Amino acid sequence: MARLPAAVLVLLAAGSAAAVWPQPQYVSEGAGGGCRLSAARFRFAYADRSAVAPGCEVLDQAFRRYWELLFLAGGNGKSEDSPCNVLSVNVTKPGCDGFPALDSSENYQLTISDQLMLLTADTVWGALRGLETFSQLAWKDDNGMFSINKTDVVDFPRFPHRGLLLDTSRHYLPLKAILETLDAMAYTKLNVFHWHIVDDPSFPYQSVKFPDLSQKGAYNPFTHVYTASDVKMVIEYARLRGIRVIPEFDTPGHTRSWGPGAPRLLTPCYAGSKPSGAYGPVNPVLNTTYQFMLEFFAEVSAVFPDFYVHLGGDEVDFTCWKSNPDIQTFMKKMGFGQDYSKLESFYIQKLLDIVSSYGKGYVVWQEVFDNAVKVKPDTIIHVWKQDNGHYPNETARVTKAGYRALLSAPWYLNYISYGQDWLGIYLVEPLAFKGSSAQKDLVIGGEACMWGEYVDVTNLSPRLWPRAGAVAERLWSNKTVRNTRDAYRRLADFRCTLLRRGIRAEPLFTGYCEHEYGSV
Amino acid sequence: MARLPAAVLVLLAAGSAAAVWPQPQYVSEGAGGGCRLSAARFRFAYADRSAVAPGCEVLDQAFRRYWELLFLAGGNGKSEDSPCNVLSVNVTKPGCDGFPALDSSENYQLTISDQLMLLTADTVWGALRGLETFSQLAWKDDNGMFSINKTDVVDFPRFPHRGLLLDTSRHYLPLKAILETLDAMAYTKLNVFHWHIVDDPSFPYQSVKFPDLSQKGAYNPFTHVYTASDVKMVIEYARLRGIRVIPEFDTPGHTRSWGPGAPRLLTPCYAGSKPSGAYGPVNPVLNTTYQFMLEFFAEVSAVFPDFYVHLGGDEVDFTCWKSNPDIQTFMKKMGFGQDYSKLESFYIQKLLDIVSSYGKGYVVWQEVFDNAVKVKPDTIIHVWKQDNGHYPNETARVTKAGYRALLSAPWYLNYISYGQDWLGIYLVEPLAFKGSSAQKDLVIGGEACMWGEYVDVTNLSPRLWPRAGAVAERLWSNKTVRNTRDAYRRLADFRCTLLRRGIRAEPLFTGYCEHEYGSV
Repeated sequence: MARLPAAVLVLLAAGSAAAVWPQPQYVSEGAGGGCRLSAARFRFAYADRSAVAPGCEVLDQAFRRYWELLFLAGGNGKSEDSPCNVLSVNVTKPGCDGFPALDSSENYQLTISDQLMLLTADTVWGALRGLETFSQLAWKDDNGMFSINKTDVVDFPRFPHRGLLLDTSRHYLPLKAILETLDAMAYTKLNVFHWHIVDDPSFPYQSVKFPDLSQKGAYNPFTHVYTASDVKMVIEYARLRGIRVIPEFDTPGHTRSWGPGAPRLLTPCYAGSKPSGAYGPVNPVLNTTYQFMLEFFAEVSAVFPDFYVHLGGDEVDFTCWKSNPDIQTFMKKMGFGQDYSKLESFYIQKLLDIVSSYGKGYVVWQEVFDNAVKVKPDTIIHVWKQDNGHYPNETARVTKAGYRALLSAPWYLNYISYGQDWLGIYLVEPLAFKGSSAQKDLVIGGEACMWGEYVDVTNLSPRLWPRAGAVAERLWSNKTVRNTRDAYRRLADFRCTLLRRGIRAEPLFTGYCEHEYGSV
Repeated sequence: MARLPAAVLVLLAAGSAAAVWPQPQYVSEGAGGGCRLSAARFRFAYADRSAVAPGCEVLDQAFRRYWELLFLAGGNGKSEDSPCNVLSVNVTKPGCDGFPALDSSENYQLTISDQLMLLTADTVWGALRGLETFSQLAWKDDNGMFSINKTDVVDFPRFPHRGLLLDTSRHYLPLKAILETLDAMAYTKLNVFHWHIVDDPSFPYQSVKFPDLSQKGAYNPFTHVYTASDVKMVIEYARLRGIRVIPEFDTPGHTRSWGPGAPRLLTPCYAGSKPSGAYGPVNPVLNTTYQFMLEFFAEVSAVFPDFYVHLGGDEVDFTCWKSNPDIQTFMKKMGFGQDYSKLESFYIQKLLDIVSSYGKGYVVWQEVFDNAVKVKPDTIIHVWKQDNGHYPNETARVTKAGYRALLSAPWYLNYISYGQDWLGIYLVEPLAFKGSSAQKDLVIGGEACMWGEYVDVTNLSPRLWPRAGAVAERLWSNKTVRNTRDAYRRLADFRCTLLRRGIRAEPLFTGYCEHEYGSV
């Protein structure tokens, strides 16, 4: 991750002009009034020397989007020539058709002066972040006209992996809700959509190779599924916003919904000497299991372009395995004794090898590390157990072992409580654990998680926003940005921006927005 | 309240047919299949001997509404003559133009047989309740056709006052959100909309006599106000659904927003010997205060037709009063010593007399009773303090003193927590306090409260529904209806009904509805 030099100049300007969320690394606002933006004349343009040019879909579309967001409420009809008529965008590295990746640069610089408005970035992904900042710097004066102040911004993310998990198994989320979430992620500079797409309750992913999985495992095989074209649309919609899509297919536990569509995949549980009719985790003792995984992950690896796949590996209940005589025989044969975590490791090991063979990297929940499964050195360990607030110890262990860590333990946003719980979310310091500087460099970021037990399309947006914004700033902004009074002011202001943009973001506290959600 | 005879026959029928929420007092379902309802032929009709006839707006409109709710999803095109083509509605007491009141009968009987479908009720309000039950008894078969089973329902509410409080001061709620809430209240047979319309943060009520109150006290005097016609619309929309509207104008505390529009109304606070510039509660020592209240409540009494006005009276902070030399002088003159609750009582007493003079009754928060203010015998005391779960003691004290009690203490739905908190809400027993049977008869019901610190239009519906439904069943159904497993099944089913009807009701737990909210 990029780190700030010792002397940091973070000038928080007065007025709405500098209420940017998340807070950029450096902002300095010049003196003097704002320069007026005219809806009739304002446009985004590729700088002459830019390495990307018109026809670059990522920026062409972003220019259109941000123009609409800026002038959504309309009214800026005044025509006058001014340097504020054009924001020139200069991208130094070519490349438009690819996908953002963990090591993509998101750096950008933004200069708003009397002479020109210039956005410079290494990559189109950085340019997207700069466009978002630009759109937040514009403010409406009392006449409803947009102005922008003289400002210099030098910005880059503190952590490269800033994610959000949605769970589409416990409740199905319509495509529209996922796309809207991607919009709001772009507004907060979050850059990884962790799609926890299937789990015990339902299997909405429509597999081309194994259509029975959703046909028999979805809540409804026609209305509660994600077709191949739905998945493509999510990936492309995300790409255009500089967001990676990491799918999670969690095994060997959390797989009840796989059972009906994949005969023999799950372990038959026994009651005494007879099968009880119930099924447990994936059956790790059959060759057919690995044949299935080989074919299934061939498809997953082809459908999802990101280098990383999330393979789960959490919360495996051994009760069913213990009851099954075939498993018992296998345990004996392998010399595992009564240690079923060895059997789990055996399974995971083989799975990781399969996924590796497709040239993919993987993220796994912390149990895989805790159970000492042999993983590739570039594996990312996802720290999720709150452990009574002792999760930093796990981060320390993971990084001490040389693995990269991803933090979610303090950011389970599905957990709700009365009052301003965004404060606790906001004040988490991901690197507050005992470890060397090399260890801290191994923390690649974190993810806000929205598990779906109690969440569906009816309450998703207000539970996520603006709370997930608190995680977004923690992962983007400088470590020193943690003044809660200033954060309250900016987050309340940003929440009004979200409302204006059609995101159903709940209030932080008593008050109002000029433009309320929907009808006002 | 009506009480059940000792031998109660509550037959819970299998299938979706009898998943009615709230559970009627008596339901018995006959054997045999359902009778099919045809969208092409089905209609509601006034029975020949009914005391109300076509032209009765309450029922004319309800017939239209429930026809739409029943056949919303369309598709029932089959035309066949059957007794299921008409639901005859027989109202025994005349009266259509009035307003529902605390003592209105809501009893109804519903008979669905091979020979006829008949709904009988004392009043149009009871007929509305029966229509709701009828609409919930209809179920869709596998072909998407609506059927209704042979059923007998005898139903009446356990408590006559079943309310819901919305707070439109801490956040402004657009008219649409209020009307939608009234719809959902009708679906759950709630019958009192307690409109906590103004409070410290803002004064959205546009007064005809004192326009400055909202002009200077609303968040925005143009967009964040309720005009006279808005208020009329809420009252009429509620009336058509058998819902009373009780406005609350809380004084002498909770009045900060009144200050800017009503000079000299609030007490100037002092810092030492000089006014600090801050203001406290209503100034109880000036005659102008009572002149203002006389005029203001003349308007309120005329605008809101219900017999009851809620006068607040809670949480008066004495700090400012204590600092003010005029108040100190008045305290001495009155011989109140240092007991400022006597001053509060003095004010409340005069206010109650004013409101009484307009022929109105009043509801007050429990402090008015706790502070021994002399109130009329028909005053309703609103029990709100949770008191570490000891609130039943307050209900006991209130009823022991001969006053009627209204319960909200366990039903502050703005308090949220993770998981199935509807269970705690549901299992409250309002009469579980030490007291005579005469005392218990004085509990007229309860209200679910949705205070607005953290709630606005973005998250109102999913916080209210289906949780407020748990309160609704507790207040409507028989005391013995408290099997949580059965309640879960019916409430989850009812929540799907709410989604189908366009109410953004959140899920109880993992699962799905055939018709999800919105896009699916």
